[in-house]
Amino acid sequence: MKYIDGGVCAAQGFMAGGVACGIKKSGKLDLALVYSEVPAQAAAVFTTNRVKAAPVQLSMKHIKSGIAQAIIANSGNANACVGPQGDAAALAMCQAAAEYLKVPVESVLVASTGVIGVQLPVEKIEDTLKKTPGIVSRGGNLSAAQAIMTTDTFKKEAAVEIELAGSVVRIGGMAKGSGMIHPNMATMLGFVTTDAAIDQALLQQAVKRAADISFNRVTVDGDTSTNDSLFVLANGKAGNTKICAEGPEYDAFCAGLEAVCLELAKMLARDGEGATKLVEIRVEGANSEAAAVQVGKTIATSSLVKTAIFGEDANWGRILAAAGYSGVAIQPELVDIYLGDLLVCSGGTGLVFDEEKAKAILSKKEITIIVKLGQGNASAAVWTCDLTYDYVKINGSYRT
Amino acid sequence: MKYIDGGVCAAQGFMAGGVACGIKKSGKLDLALVYSEVPAQAAAVFTTNRVKAAPVQLSMKHIKSGIAQAIIANSGNANACVGPQGDAAALAMCQAAAEYLKVPVESVLVASTGVIGVQLPVEKIEDTLKKTPGIVSRGGNLSAAQAIMTTDTFKKEAAVEIELAGSVVRIGGMAKGSGMIHPNMATMLGFVTTDAAIDQALLQQAVKRAADISFNRVTVDGDTSTNDSLFVLANGKAGNTKICAEGPEYDAFCAGLEAVCLELAKMLARDGEGATKLVEIRVEGANSEAAAVQVGKTIATSSLVKTAIFGEDANWGRILAAAGYSGVAIQPELVDIYLGDLLVCSGGTGLVFDEEKAKAILSKKEITIIVKLGQGNASAAVWTCDLTYDYVKINGSYRT
Repeated sequence: MKYIDGGVCAAQGFMAGGVACGIKKSGKLDLALVYSEVPAQAAAVFTTNRVKAAPVQLSMKHIKSGIAQAIIANSGNANACVGPQGDAAALAMCQAAAEYLKVPVESVLVASTGVIGVQLPVEKIEDTLKKTPGIVSRGGNLSAAQAIMTTDTFKKEAAVEIELAGSVVRIGGMAKGSGMIHPNMATMLGFVTTDAAIDQALLQQAVKRAADISFNRVTVDGDTSTNDSLFVLANGKAGNTKICAEGPEYDAFCAGLEAVCLELAKMLARDGEGATKLVEIRVEGANSEAAAVQVGKTIATSSLVKTAIFGEDANWGRILAAAGYSGVAIQPELVDIYLGDLLVCSGGTGLVFDEEKAKAILSKKEITIIVKLGQGNASAAVWTCDLTYDYVKINGSYRT
Repeated sequence: MKYIDGGVCAAQGFMAGGVACGIKKSGKLDLALVYSEVPAQAAAVFTTNRVKAAPVQLSMKHIKSGIAQAIIANSGNANACVGPQGDAAALAMCQAAAEYLKVPVESVLVASTGVIGVQLPVEKIEDTLKKTPGIVSRGGNLSAAQAIMTTDTFKKEAAVEIELAGSVVRIGGMAKGSGMIHPNMATMLGFVTTDAAIDQALLQQAVKRAADISFNRVTVDGDTSTNDSLFVLANGKAGNTKICAEGPEYDAFCAGLEAVCLELAKMLARDGEGATKLVEIRVEGANSEAAAVQVGKTIATSSLVKTAIFGEDANWGRILAAAGYSGVAIQPELVDIYLGDLLVCSGGTGLVFDEEKAKAILSKKEITIIVKLGQGNASAAVWTCDLTYDYVKINGSYRT
């Protein structure tokens, strides 16, 4: 597997692009299009929030056929909790994209991200698409990735190249994150394209697993969004023998898909609102992978752990306390905790450790916390960021 | 029912006091004693965290007899996650209190609060008690309440007077809160005394219910402590006919106990670390009380909701989103949301509302959010505070 450039345009037969419609008052890019030259096998996972934005509901309907050819996504407005007008706006977005790209309206997936509860000025999208030729291109992945950003501070793209029985297959994607990030099925928005030829049912299975071990293991603030959507389009342009069953080629495809999703997911944590540090929490010695994830996510969501990391304070007691209330029946007397490679707690009891070394470890931009539960052989990693003044600042005045 | 002064000394036959042992580097009060002239019926609830501090484990043992005569509590050190030395230190605290107050060691309950994972310098407590006569007095409730504070900014006391069949009965208590506040059985520390005569089993039942509707409905940061303990001592000094069965007198006692616990619990939220506002979240129209509490606590724990309240931003979409991921099967299209008396969301859809009025409501020190689920007849209130720069500041450098 080789990491490559190109994001959602890395795979053959895909084009993309971003444009400014005026939804964002700043005049920044706020509309992205992704287009496949041919109809693609499509799979998706969506937010488990009972409150689902209008575009989520419409995309759930459109994905049922297992085929998609385009994605339209806006930032600056979530098109959520705005009643029937929201449903009409989501449909109008799909129609505008369908006309622009000359594809059937049912083959367009739609996503929105931004403020909740404000009517989307969909006419701005319609007008812009009517007036602006050539939005999508083979090199448009950069502007597309930019157009889905809200409070993100950098674009989130990743792509890999894999070989499947002699054919070169590419898998690339983009995502947006920042706040309200505690995905429970998918991230805020993640779009992945591949030129692999693969059966739709297998693709859906691969996407579910990839989301579970990447986006679903990231948290910024414990808030699960109303708009989380991960779309994967596979257009078969690589010319590989179509993957129609599990086996080595399916596994290789899954490994590539997981690598792209994991890169994007870690970028979400690194770029969490106000974040200054990326924190990986590895839980080992659990009785099951689910238990390891549960302990890890509880630690990753703890405001006390996250502020201590911001303050570069080796307050491991908060890590152990979070493990203790995770709902998993841990045995405190078996737990070891490492900050980086520094053992700070052994058998549930604090050690006298080198505070200078701890400070040096915590002053880095990337921090690994290892929690060994001592109960079994399962393990999992989750990712989070620190909780900072800027998180409070950004979210104290998001609408204004 | 009448609210009165006196805290843990409001009830007859109780004395209390605080003293500085030098556990806190600042030299502030850090040891509290509560004493009943006669053995009291005792009941308690403790943290559900799997990681339980040494004093919690010892108090769980001592409470088994249903009798207690004294409480010893220190602040500045949680005596948690420090191995067998912690168990010895907790026992030494009980022994020192038993000698000082001339009561059996098994009748002493013990509690600690402060940093986790640092050995408690118990000899400082032993030395201070040997050297300092007259720590407890009838007016010592104020210094006792002060001695259990950590990052609390004010003392937390409450007391009521009730009449039980002609006898005047008093119920009073004190608590400490601030951070790591998301009680799951009890608060960080809550001590309640009463001169009521009541059967121990009924007392335990009353305490459990009172904790459930007060301390267990407060959150500051979603972190459940390793040290949460609520102790209630009933010494019978009021001379009321002993409550030995459910009925009007038991109900009156419960109402008094609940009023004291609720006052203390709301003080915890109001004085959450860095907090500038007390937020009451009332969930109505739920299918069950448990569902109402679950929705309420999910909203109360949301960092996005809490920062928006700090920023006085009427971002109700975050409230609805939190309800949506609470795990309760809400129907978004039935949900109404009020900020104070201002309806901002009806049937899951945002309304055009008076932003000035919303701002005025959110600029107050006490804010009520009402969420009407429209599904059933059950309701519940929970309390939280806003998430501020100061929360990050305090917790970025708690140990240092």
